[in-house]
Formats: sequence, C-alpha cells, structure tokens
Amino acid sequence: MTQPQTSPGTGRPFSGAVFVATSLDGYIARPDGRIDWLISAAEEAGDTGYEQFIAGIDSVVMGRKTYEQARTFDSWPHEGRRVAVLSTRLPVGIDQRISVHRTIFELVEALTAFGAARVYVDGGQVIQTFLAEGLIQELTVTTVPLLLGRGLPLFGQLPHDVTLMHRQTRVLGAGLVQSSYTTSESS
Amino acid sequence: MTQPQTSPGTGRPFSGAVFVATSLDGYIARPDGRIDWLISAAEEAGDTGYEQFIAGIDSVVMGRKTYEQARTFDSWPHEGRRVAVLSTRLPVGIDQRISVHRTIFELVEALTAFGAARVYVDGGQVIQTFLAEGLIQELTVTTVPLLLGRGLPLFGQLPHDVTLMHRQTRVLGAGLVQSSYTTSESS
Repeated sequence: MTQPQTSPGTGRPFSGAVFVATSLDGYIARPDGRIDWLISAAEEAGDTGYEQFIAGIDSVVMGRKTYEQARTFDSWPHEGRRVAVLSTRLPVGIDQRISVHRTIFELVEALTAFGAARVYVDGGQVIQTFLAEGLIQELTVTTVPLLLGRGLPLFGQLPHDVTLMHRQTRVLGAGLVQSSYTTSESS
Repeated sequence: MTQPQTSPGTGRPFSGAVFVATSLDGYIARPDGRIDWLISAAEEAGDTGYEQFIAGIDSVVMGRKTYEQARTFDSWPHEGRRVAVLSTRLPVGIDQRISVHRTIFELVEALTAFGAARVYVDGGQVIQTFLAEGLIQELTVTTVPLLLGRGLPLFGQLPHDVTLMHRQTRVLGAGLVQSSYTTSESS
C-alpha cells in the first residue's frame, strides 16, 4: 500500500514520541507560558507513566523555549540522553549538553547520524513541526479537567488529516485522562 | 463559598448539557462544516450513549447553522422537545417547531419561562457562548482519533478558567474516547 514515511535523506526513520499534558481545550500553557494549573493537577495525578516513558528514550528534541525552561530546573532533566534543540537563534556552542540545529532537515539528519532510535519530541512548536512532517509515531496526551480559554496550543495546522490508532486510555488521579495513540503508519 | 451561578434574571438556572464529538485537535467540523470524518467513525463506535443522553433532555439550544443542518435531516431530530435557536438573522416565525431568540439574555429568559430543566446545548458557537456565561453544567466530549489540522473549534476564548470535575471515561468502538465532566458549580 503506502510507503512508510522516512526521514529526509534516510531510508529508516527513528521513532518520534510525544508525551504531553493539555487542558481540555487544547492548551499546553497559559499565554505567558505558565503551567501552574498543570503543576497542581500533576501533584494529585499519581503515576503518570512518565518515568516508564522516558526510560525508553535515547534522544530528545525540543525548541528554544523548552530548553530555556529545562535549564532552569534544579537538575538537568535529560542526563544520559542526547538533546537536540531546534532554534534559529540559540548560539551553537551554548551548552555542552545539547546540540543546536537551525532547520528540521539538519536536525533529523543529525538524529539519524547519532543513531537515535526513540526520540522524545517536547514542546508545542516542535511537536507541531514533527507532526506536520510525519515524524511522530506515538502520541500520549494527558488531559487536565480544565478549560483555560486561551494559551499556547498543543496542536497546529497540518497539511492533511493524520489518522491515529487508539492504544490505551486510563484515568489518573485528579481526573486526568491519559490516552495513547500511534500514527497509522506505525500500526 | 462562591455563589452558585444563576441565569440572567432568575434565581435558579436550568441545567445545560453538552454532548459533542471532536477530533483530537479540538475541531467539531472541517472549515466548510463537513463532518465526513465523524460520520465514518460513528458508524464503528457502537453505542455512543446519545440515546440515553437525549432521553433526559426537554429543551435544545442551537445556533442558526446547526438549525439549518438539522432541518435537512430526513426527520426532525427533536420531535417533542422545545428547540430554541439563537440567531440575529433567522426570521422569528420561520418554523413552528422552534423559537428564535436574538440574544442569549432573551433566550435564557425564554428557556426559564418555558420551565426548561435539562437543556441540550448544541453547536460550536452556542456551546462557547454558554460556557463563557457559566450556563453549562455537564460536558460529554467524544474524541475521534484523528488530527484534522484545521476546522471549526469546539472551544473558544473564556473570561476565566473553568474547572471541571471528571465523571467518567470510556472507550467506544473505532478508538473513540468519551469523557464526561461536570462544572465544579454543580458538583
């Protein structure tokens, strides 16, 4: 039937995985980036499955905003994993723990050269870019029972429908609903 | 604590209920209103609970677009229920089966005068207006495993956070995930 989607310039893509929380109306943060509503919900959620998810990840892709947030944490959250940052602005040598890439093409080539197998794609804009390019194979969305009314959206425009296969749904603490999907290409 | 929210001009609101399907990226229809993706998913969904939901409804609120779609159906879908249409354009006497209201204030007054108890709020714009006014007490959202990338959004801007209580989640056929919420005021 259809050809499996491949990364630019390679015959075999890595597997891109999203693990993200959103309000019921589809925002990952308030307009100014605050996630106060998520932090308070996560405290009551119990085991969200993040530890199990991240244990299977060898590489992480993020945008500049997510990187700048991550570097403020008490400890670097991705010790032992390759971290590739997609940014047109960030100086290339800014941080030994990351590689900086100017375009998604360059980033995908680098991930492939690294031998990346399972890539965590983090941050709204990078998730949207990877989805539009067909580079996401797994999508776990945890929905917080809250309407924010405005904010930074999880999803963006796409050039075409993306059909998903539902894999699992479970209800966490605080009424969080976590659903996992794969893209049809990987089913 | 806080005052229960009341309808404009009344001491006791009816209960507003939403029962709606959306793509995972939050659209209720394609940009031109088509719901082909939903119809094909619904055919495989099995019992969506709609019949049970609608059996408990005495009144329906919709916008002009939803009304104009409903009148094209082979049979009028709301026989035996009051139907109030919110529209600035629709002629008031256009259809004996409906009442037409120019403003949400007038519509809420009429519903209250009718003695409406449990009101089905249908259609994107009307849902958004009722949510912003605090007139929704129950929200059942069925998520289709699909990203449309563009379309008519289920949710819109809100003047403040709306906290929800998660009530139930179940997985239907074709990977549809149905979650029910109540607004905290009604918990």
